Formats: sequence, structure tokens, C-alpha cells
Amino acid sequence: MIDEELFRDCYVSTPSKIVMLVVDGLGGLAHPDTGLSELETARLPNLDAMARESACGLTTPVEPGVAPGSGPGHLALFGYDPLKHLIGRGALEALGIEVDLRPGDVAARGNFCTVDDAGFLTDRRAGRIPTELSAPLCRRLDRIEVDGAQLDVFPVQDYRFVLRLRGEGLSEAITETDPQITGVPALDVQPLAPEAQNTADMINSFVTQAQGLLAEEERGNMVLLRGFAQLPNLPPMGDVYQLDPAGIAAYPMYRGLATVAGMQVISTGHSFKDEVETLRQRFEEHDFFFIHYKPADAAGEDGDFDAKVKCLEDLDPFINEIRELEPDVFIVAGDHSTPAIMAAHSWHPVPFMLHSQLTKGEGIDGFNERSCGLGSIGRIPATRVMLLALSHAGKLTKYGP
Amino acid sequence: MIDEELFRDCYVSTPSKIVMLVVDGLGGLAHPDTGLSELETARLPNLDAMARESACGLTTPVEPGVAPGSGPGHLALFGYDPLKHLIGRGALEALGIEVDLRPGDVAARGNFCTVDDAGFLTDRRAGRIPTELSAPLCRRLDRIEVDGAQLDVFPVQDYRFVLRLRGEGLSEAITETDPQITGVPALDVQPLAPEAQNTADMINSFVTQAQGLLAEEERGNMVLLRGFAQLPNLPPMGDVYQLDPAGIAAYPMYRGLATVAGMQVISTGHSFKDEVETLRQRFEEHDFFFIHYKPADAAGEDGDFDAKVKCLEDLDPFINEIRELEPDVFIVAGDHSTPAIMAAHSWHPVPFMLHSQLTKGEGIDGFNERSCGLGSIGRIPATRVMLLALSHAGKLTKYGP
Repeated sequence: MIDEELFRDCYVSTPSKIVMLVVDGLGGLAHPDTGLSELETARLPNLDAMARESACGLTTPVEPGVAPGSGPGHLALFGYDPLKHLIGRGALEALGIEVDLRPGDVAARGNFCTVDDAGFLTDRRAGRIPTELSAPLCRRLDRIEVDGAQLDVFPVQDYRFVLRLRGEGLSEAITETDPQITGVPALDVQPLAPEAQNTADMINSFVTQAQGLLAEEERGNMVLLRGFAQLPNLPPMGDVYQLDPAGIAAYPMYRGLATVAGMQVISTGHSFKDEVETLRQRFEEHDFFFIHYKPADAAGEDGDFDAKVKCLEDLDPFINEIRELEPDVFIVAGDHSTPAIMAAHSWHPVPFMLHSQLTKGEGIDGFNERSCGLGSIGRIPATRVMLLALSHAGKLTKYGP
Repeated sequence: MIDEELFRDCYVSTPSKIVMLVVDGLGGLAHPDTGLSELETARLPNLDAMARESACGLTTPVEPGVAPGSGPGHLALFGYDPLKHLIGRGALEALGIEVDLRPGDVAARGNFCTVDDAGFLTDRRAGRIPTELSAPLCRRLDRIEVDGAQLDVFPVQDYRFVLRLRGEGLSEAITETDPQITGVPALDVQPLAPEAQNTADMINSFVTQAQGLLAEEERGNMVLLRGFAQLPNLPPMGDVYQLDPAGIAAYPMYRGLATVAGMQVISTGHSFKDEVETLRQRFEEHDFFFIHYKPADAAGEDGDFDAKVKCLEDLDPFINEIRELEPDVFIVAGDHSTPAIMAAHSWHPVPFMLHSQLTKGEGIDGFNERSCGLGSIGRIPATRVMLLALSHAGKLTKYGP
């Protein structure tokens, strides 16, 4: 939150409803041939029409010049300072495959790797062995027991897995075992704080046992562990904002992020169509909905400009379906930009629009980077989006007498 | 830095090269007769062409409404929070005349002044005695010795000098001797912290001895000392950003500021032409270059609108010379505005542009206050310029998973 105490007395619970649609990787950059971005290239009659009746602006996810991962990008939109609350790699990976991760658990990203007879790394990814080969190895590792904590291993994909430690007094303050190069042995885990000694001992015991269990494998006879992380301890957004928030997302990681923010996750199908249908069915039950659209980011990360344009066009008809539910506030935002010409998350400000009874339009002709840059909201930190959502919904009253 | 720890894991060293040209006092205000600013009046074909291919914006040096000195203006562009790291007057004056100032040294701005027989100030500037008269007086004062520290006096210009104290355990936390009015005696130095007692005693001893040595002078028979300051303890920007930074500046103060930020200062000549030649010759040796253009500020401070226009036009051809070196990122920024109609530094946002392979232009037609205000970067704190420089150069990776 900006500061969960700051406007504490200003938040009020009302029946009004807010829908926040997060279009993953929404923003883009101009195609070199046309000078037009993905949003400017796409035919988006519904998004453009909504922009003409909305307050528009650009959001800065973290800081100018800083490209965020999915974690910081979403937490900022939910109002949490992404510089204060970081979700570690292991925890995010666990959320991404829907591992039940609870406060206090430690999660790590695991790799199968290959070492020679002397224990020196020859392949940090075990020849990228496929899931068919790695899943049985995960089941073998899952049988390992260590003193003082419950230990579980979950396959991710190919050579990757998640290790979860559950117990009392665990700590994420330990070093990684991956030396990041071959020709050397895996590293021992070291505690980075006195209270982390026990956790370090458990992990080292796991690795030793794993090496024993995997010794006969040709590829994947050892493991590497990185990104030890616990869930950040976030104040639930329902408590802070006096909301009853729900999250609808087809992809597990975004359901995980909704959980971390204290939303109730509503189960849905595998497509955005399913998500919108879920929103419709459960619309009476909550006063805040986060709904997530993934495909635009994936196309951007693939560097496929035309595919990203298509993903945005595919989204467009659903805008009217959501508007027909008549939410008091309907926000279209992005967690970050993913310009196809960069094939990566980027730092560029992200188009943003907010529709409500109070927004009658401001001469903006379409929903894209350039138009939104001229909107009345201007460039704001993404962490302020929730304040605008709440105020337009009548849920944030006057600050100070 | 925004916070030198915050993005620590995101900075990566790469061979890409960044050039940051700081045009001192770059921004201006409209001439009352034409309604055009200095930048809008000047013929700047190269700067305007670059703006058409750049990402443009405006930087706020400190806060809206706050006009910075050269110290905060530059430190902000180098990424240091100018509200957290202030270079005191004495230290900046010492840097400005290229006094060798090291961590722990205390520097002060000194004035020769005139007192009557009773020791009451009659002229705080000793009739602005010229350097020919004051330099010998400085040499006389330079012979003074105090217990516990080495003491040196350096002439500046006219009635001004720099006093440098070098020793163990010195403190800048002492009061000034200048009462700011005549008709009263100079003040004794008082410690503002317990550990500053020794330093205060040394300075008071210096002043007493100085009064003795100057007693026979008609003008300049006493000294006043102000702005006691030590160098701020800044994290070197090379360490923080994983850069090998260099500074090129014809004027000593800006070389001093580069040193304070941890850059290697490359010696150069007395003109900007010399600076650009130095940049060319040493271009392979570093991955970040700060290069400083002074004349625009001097003309602005003189209140000479036409001269400032001329200074900007003189700069313009060098823009292409720098672009021919093909830096991966080329930034043109200013430490602050110096509108000629104000004849002073001002608080106005400063035009800014960044050229890289990722910036293909955004319909901005020229490099000036008005055009840059419409650019995609918007208005950003000057402290974020380094983040944008690094990200466009591929030296700042994703924040958070």
C-alpha cells in the first residue's frame, strides 16, 4: 500500500463495484515500418470507445527505466509498494504451478543438473531433460525427509522443479547452491542470518540425500537450488480498503498473486472467455474484481508484433461484455509494457483508463500509449491506481478536515 | 542514488556505451517580445533532428519550484538524491578552484573584510580588493599553523579565498564567523556537535592569528569564514551501477562533481571542442561519459538572452560529432534552467532527450521546453535519468520475478 495507515479513516465500504482488468504486458513500442505501436495498429472499437468516455493516463510500474517482473507489476496495481514488498523467485515459481504456499513456508526453484564423478558440474540443466523423465525423479526426491520440517518436491517443466519446506522458524535468508557456471561443484547453502542456520542445514541435508538418490542417472544426477523465498507478509487489501475483493485468472501465477494480496480467488476455466463468464456469474458476490488477460504479454515476449496485435483484438469484444455488467468503476490497466520489438518486459509507461459515472471523456480518441499520454490522469505511479478506483467508486472519502 | 541497494541485482555490466551531455542551465523562458524561449529562438538543426529520433521529456532537478545550485543539479542527474546528499558551500568552492579535497578535509569559503580599531566590521568584502592584492595576503595566511591539523589557504578571486583543514577527526558541524551585517564584530566559531569542539578551536585559533598577521592592512585587515563543509560520502556510481564512468569537463567545479560521484576525470582542454576531442580519443576506455557544456549557463546568468541563444547554437554542431561516435545511448540533459530573463538559476523543468536503438521518435519536432513537455518520458525527477540511461543501454535488467 502507499502506506496502509495513511488514509485508513478515509476508506468506506459501499455497494459500488470495481472491476480492474489487467492486460498483461499491455504497452508496446512502434513497429519500425509503420511508426505505430501494437495498440495503435490493432482494430479496437470497444477499447477506443471506452477511452472516449474515460479518464486516461499512463502508469509507471516501479520507476522510470525499471522493467518489472509480473510480481512487482501486479502488486503495484493492487496498491502495494513494489519496492517494499518483493515476492522472491521461489515463491513466485511455486505460485505459478499452484503449489499451496502458506506464510512461513520456504520455496525454491530447483534444477536437475549433471555432475561428473568428482562432483563437478558438466550441465547445469541436465540436458534439459523432458518432464516425462524429470517427473519421476521429482517423486523420488519427494520421499526425502529432513529433521524439523516437511519437505515436498513439485515438478514444473522439463528440468525444473519447486522445493517447498514447511515448518516452524524457517528462513529465506540463505545462499543458493547454483554456482552459475560448469566445471565446479554445486555450492553448499550458507545462512545469511543467525536464525537461518537450521534452514540451511535442512537444505544441505536434502541436497546430499538427493545426490544419493540420483547417483545412477546419466542426465540429472544432481540438483541445484536457487531463489529461496517466503511469501511477503502483505496487509490484505480487503482489510485496508474495506473491500471484499476477488481475483479471476486462468493462469495459476496470477491467482497466486491475488491470494498474496488477500483476494478471494474464484475458480474459472482456461480462457479469458471463461474468466468473463465467471465474473458475470459471481458479480453480485464481491465489490472488487481483479480479472487477468494473459495472451498479449506472451505474444510480446515472443517478439511477435502481429500476434500481439491479434491478442489485443481478441480482447476487444469482451470489453463490452464487462461494461454490460455495469460496474461503477471499470479500469483497464497493465502490469507493465511488453513491446514486441523488445521481446521482453520493459519499463515504458503503461496505458490506463478508468470509466465511471464521473468520467465523460476528455477528447481522447483511442486507447494507446500516445493518446493516454494526453489524458487527464497524466503519468502516475501504478501504486495510485487503487486510490483512483476507490475514489471514483465513492469508497475513498475526504482526507483531513 | 534512488537507493543504492534497491536495484542492486538489476545492474549488469555490458560493453554498451552511454554519453550524458549536461548543458549547464539548459532550460529557459520565453522572451517577452517573441514569446519564444532561448531554445525556441536558436537555430538548432542537429539538436532538433536528434529530438525527432529520441524519447523526450522534462526533468525536475529537485522539486517543483526549487531552483538548484550546480551541486544538487548534477548529483541528481548522476542518480544521487540531492535532498540526501548535499555538497556544502566550502567544499563546492574548493572543487571549483581545483583544490585537492579529500574525504575528512574541512573546507570553508573565506572573505577578506575590514574592521575598525574596536574590531567592528566596516566592510564585509574589504572593498572588493583585487586578486593582485589578496593573493599575497593568502600566502601570508597560509603560513599559519594550528595544533592537530594541517591548514592551507587558496586564493579564489578578488576578496575570496578557500581555507582547507586536513587532519584526523575534523567536523563540519561548526557555526560561521560572518555576522552578515557590519557594525558588529566577527563571530567566534561554535561547535554544533560535541565532536566538533577541536575543529572549532582550530578555526578560532586561525582567525586570531590571521587578525594579527593582517593588522596593518588598510583594506582586508580581518577574515570571515562561512560554509564549513566536508565532501559527502557518496557511493561511487561505478560500484552501484556496474559502470566504468568518466567525466570530461573544462571547468574545475564540474570535474570536482564528477570526482565526488566516483568518476574518473579525464583531463581535457579549455573549450567544449577540446572536451569532444577528448571524448573521441578516449571513447573505447569507458562505458559511461559525463561531458559538460558550460557557456549557456554563464550567458543565462548574465541575463543576456541573445548570448544564450548564441551559446546554444555554438553547441549544436557538436551534437553530430558526438553522434558519429555511435554511443548506444546519448542523452542531452541540463542540471537546471537558467532563463536569461531571470538572470539566475531557476526551478523550471529542464528539456531532456535520450537517443538509442529503441527510440524511433514520437512526433516531437524540436528540442525545447514546449516540445519536450509532449514527449513520451513526461516529467520525471532528474534522479531517474540514470535508470533510463541504463535500461536503454541494456544495463538494467528486470526488477523482481
